[in-house]
Amino acid sequence: MSYVLGIDGGGSKTVCILMDDLHQILGRGEAGPSNYQSIGIEATLQSMQSAIHNAVEAEIIANTVNVEAVCLGLAGVGRTADIEVVKGLVQELQNNKYLPITWALQPANIVICNDAFIALIGGIGQPVGIVVAVGTGSIIFGRNHQGYTKRVGGWGYILGDEGSAYKIAVSGMNAALKSYDGREMSTNLVESFKQHLDFESIEDLIEVIYRREWGVQQIAALAPIVDFAAASGDVLANMIIDDAVKELVKATSTVIDAIFSADSVLEVVTTGSVWRSRCKMYERFTASLVNKFPKVNVILPRYEPAYGAALLALQTTQN
Amino acid sequence: MSYVLGIDGGGSKTVCILMDDLHQILGRGEAGPSNYQSIGIEATLQSMQSAIHNAVEAEIIANTVNVEAVCLGLAGVGRTADIEVVKGLVQELQNNKYLPITWALQPANIVICNDAFIALIGGIGQPVGIVVAVGTGSIIFGRNHQGYTKRVGGWGYILGDEGSAYKIAVSGMNAALKSYDGREMSTNLVESFKQHLDFESIEDLIEVIYRREWGVQQIAALAPIVDFAAASGDVLANMIIDDAVKELVKATSTVIDAIFSADSVLEVVTTGSVWRSRCKMYERFTASLVNKFPKVNVILPRYEPAYGAALLALQTTQN
Repeated sequence: MSYVLGIDGGGSKTVCILMDDLHQILGRGEAGPSNYQSIGIEATLQSMQSAIHNAVEAEIIANTVNVEAVCLGLAGVGRTADIEVVKGLVQELQNNKYLPITWALQPANIVICNDAFIALIGGIGQPVGIVVAVGTGSIIFGRNHQGYTKRVGGWGYILGDEGSAYKIAVSGMNAALKSYDGREMSTNLVESFKQHLDFESIEDLIEVIYRREWGVQQIAALAPIVDFAAASGDVLANMIIDDAVKELVKATSTVIDAIFSADSVLEVVTTGSVWRSRCKMYERFTASLVNKFPKVNVILPRYEPAYGAALLALQTTQN
Repeated sequence: MSYVLGIDGGGSKTVCILMDDLHQILGRGEAGPSNYQSIGIEATLQSMQSAIHNAVEAEIIANTVNVEAVCLGLAGVGRTADIEVVKGLVQELQNNKYLPITWALQPANIVICNDAFIALIGGIGQPVGIVVAVGTGSIIFGRNHQGYTKRVGGWGYILGDEGSAYKIAVSGMNAALKSYDGREMSTNLVESFKQHLDFESIEDLIEVIYRREWGVQQIAALAPIVDFAAASGDVLANMIIDDAVKELVKATSTVIDAIFSADSVLEVVTTGSVWRSRCKMYERFTASLVNKFPKVNVILPRYEPAYGAALLALQTTQN
């Protein structure tokens, strides 16, 4: 029997799926983060080993697991230098004697790609369409029937990430401070941030953001405050959400214009935490995009990214 | 004879001015940075001691320098906790046996304030008007004849700093990447950044900004690239500059509305690196502000902030 591994390595967790050649999921394992650029090679290797171990645990009781292909979809991986590093990781995994599996990998059976690609394949169930991935960051990635791909965004929290949780949170704090110092209309955001963060004054944001040096994830986690204010009808909060939606529609339109055509029948899958909003961000996005491209169908993910990775791995064994 | 010290403590340097009771500058010294929140108390004390030493050096040859008042204008200082820290610094300076001066300070002769306030007094020559301080960051601060003050902005590079060099640089890189991935019209900014930073691809910005973890100052130092592109007629670069000007006019208008009136005769002084632009940012700002408030006179600084600090110190000896 053919076994393949699909690995989704991200900044908060690693997911591994064990799949057979009938597309059946035989196991699924989770572990800690594996964004090696932040946490280092050793910790990444540890997370991947744990995720693989947890994924194969059940299956090895009945069968010897011989892995014939593996696909790793990792955040921020795209450049040649990154791919070389990840190839090294795969080699380490193969050398690891404690993983209860055997390996039968040819170079062609090792797929290393960006996390957006596996999110697209997992989300749609096939490698054609567009993924609009909007969590802490944002990236829009598409692939057409001819295999041409197009990426828009994904430039990170300083240079881009329009529409992301980080950007929504920062825009919310900026709007609250502008309202506080008189540049903007009154907004519930001031009270919302104060209450949520247990502040005496909205000026205490300075203390938290700069002196305690909150990181990107911590700041992004404040996006629901803006979401909730928007859902409650706050005008400034709704302007922030509308702006985020506009940026995401623009980015998605750019992918459609590049590799599809305006009247393509096409699925667009939305992934990431931002879409779980109370203020109907998903509905706003869908309405605006379908208005521009009537034959586009916006969907929620059918499967998770690690499943997409497993499908990609499997493909290499069937060529 | 009465001597006072005016100290301007910033993130890149410290300036000290020795002034007598006739408003004469008897000495001027420079030293390294003194933003204690970033570099720590010890390094700050070192910079201040050096700046004072350099300021009084010439005068002590002829006279004993007995300092009767001191004013420290420091970036980011405003909250009670900050002021207590700076009071401690002043105490340390008084205890320092190696400074060739004597001190005769009463608590009322120690003035600790925000750097925007001394920039206002130095820039205009009296403590009435508005300073529009736009360097790496941005803050707009005003004081009227009755002594009421109003601050707008100054919320730092994540939460605010509209119109600042940092924001202009980041907007420029964002526009270049949006143009590169197809979301924006073509712009010279792509080539400008590539040439200036010796990049093969504009995607190398990722490497510089995130992996080499460029700091705020390093990023802000890229603003002249946007300025130059705007001066050369690049449409996107000019939109960024226009947006920066709009934000600064808005912020200044907010101060005028708060503590002056629309027909006040009033001076607005512009300070900071951003105003030395080739693309006529100063002229754009002036035209737009004077269009809204015809009796406002926009000026370049008459004196430096440390001079303003010395004036403030002197005031405490004359009450």
